[in-house]
Amino acid sequence: MRAAFYISDGTAITSEVFGHALLSLFPVEFEHFTIPFVESVEKAEQVKQQINQMYRKTGLKPFVFHTFVNPQTREIIDTCDAVIYNFLEHFISPVEQQLGIGAKPKAHRTHSIHENSYDYRIDAVNFALANDDGTRVTDYEHADIILVGVSRSGKTPSCLYLALQYGIKAANYPFTEDDIDELRLPDFLMKHKQKLFGLTIDADRLIDIRNGRMANSKYSSARQCRLEIREVEKLYKQEKIPFLNTTKFSVEEISAKILSTTGLQRYKY
Amino acid sequence: MRAAFYISDGTAITSEVFGHALLSLFPVEFEHFTIPFVESVEKAEQVKQQINQMYRKTGLKPFVFHTFVNPQTREIIDTCDAVIYNFLEHFISPVEQQLGIGAKPKAHRTHSIHENSYDYRIDAVNFALANDDGTRVTDYEHADIILVGVSRSGKTPSCLYLALQYGIKAANYPFTEDDIDELRLPDFLMKHKQKLFGLTIDADRLIDIRNGRMANSKYSSARQCRLEIREVEKLYKQEKIPFLNTTKFSVEEISAKILSTTGLQRYKY
Repeated sequence: MRAAFYISDGTAITSEVFGHALLSLFPVEFEHFTIPFVESVEKAEQVKQQINQMYRKTGLKPFVFHTFVNPQTREIIDTCDAVIYNFLEHFISPVEQQLGIGAKPKAHRTHSIHENSYDYRIDAVNFALANDDGTRVTDYEHADIILVGVSRSGKTPSCLYLALQYGIKAANYPFTEDDIDELRLPDFLMKHKQKLFGLTIDADRLIDIRNGRMANSKYSSARQCRLEIREVEKLYKQEKIPFLNTTKFSVEEISAKILSTTGLQRYKY
Repeated sequence: MRAAFYISDGTAITSEVFGHALLSLFPVEFEHFTIPFVESVEKAEQVKQQINQMYRKTGLKPFVFHTFVNPQTREIIDTCDAVIYNFLEHFISPVEQQLGIGAKPKAHRTHSIHENSYDYRIDAVNFALANDDGTRVTDYEHADIILVGVSRSGKTPSCLYLALQYGIKAANYPFTEDDIDELRLPDFLMKHKQKLFGLTIDADRLIDIRNGRMANSKYSSARQCRLEIREVEKLYKQEKIPFLNTTKFSVEEISAKILSTTGLQRYKY
């Protein structure tokens, strides 16, 4: 199998995301290696040896996706027995021409604490945890959004993703049997109706997930899962709450869809 | 201010990460717009209008970073009054030549639920929540890693990031006053010593953070913060636990450093 290396003097997240997106266009499997914080000549030389060994072992030139600020370490990686994708470099001079100013590369400019959005993100994570799963329903005035839905429809991971990635304060509330029976929103949700966003899920998937947690219970029974979903979707329509079926979507997709539906502003790019 | 658009028929995360990394090399501010799920010709035409209006309003050609699988929608965006960065496209034919096979673009190949690591990630999030903050200390045999440290040294956001991004099961345990007084690991940690990773933080930063939560308390006092940090660092050295000072690092950086120090394998690329 061919190896793909993602290397940087920072987190290497940019290299990973770009390299992964590019390689995913090809029906070929790769062995992946991420090597962050290559900040010294010694470390760069070690990495070069590792890459060259991989070439000798597999007979296939590894693909190397890298972003370096320091030219000294970059030059070492550029001389590996590998196919080098210096993907940011390629676009620097067109951008310079457009802007009429030169690039000023600085280490740790992305994915670091210096982004002014960083505190927002940590505050948002704390908010999501304190307001997870309906444990606190008295602080919704500070929420940017409140995800609602039946238990195990994907609310918690979505809230955490919105918080960690985008600094959005997302609470979540699982509908109780009473809410479902009465087909009405509790008062503490009604007060913040404009912040509500509903999640739903296919019954078969919900039955699977709940069985994984509590097999052969009322909670995981087909009858109960179908009933809850049917009633909750009825409630969304009745109350005109925007909602999304999460069955086929990842947290990244759910979050992106929530942002684009609600127009919520993120605190990070 | 010049506008930067990140557009895709998927989540647009790849466009955001690439565009942000490129623009961060320049000492210029941009107004950012992310537009995911541009999946129809109608939607693409709307977005084109929005971009062209922005150009007329600002007199500056917006920068557009896009990834499209569907050529029909891509062509519409390519004809906007904007500077278009079709950054994946540019690298496709070099990769085709290297691999000797053609690209087979497929929608939602990245950042979607179809990646086989997806269930790992959701399981890992559930694990991180159930094993957060020392609330459960009996399930550490299922942890990939256990972050330890004083209260508010960055353990929880780091665990959640490791789980959400990489599918790593990360528990965390805040040292109690007793642990600190006796300068010893409790038995349930000692049993899993090889999984421990310590976090520490500068005293001034810890005092700030704790004051934000509980001002003028013993918990947030300079004396207490300094004492806890000093003793805990002593414990790390005594027990040979690898550790990291998180003061100047983001969760992305902390997570990348933990992975590279421990050699833990991630479940996602």
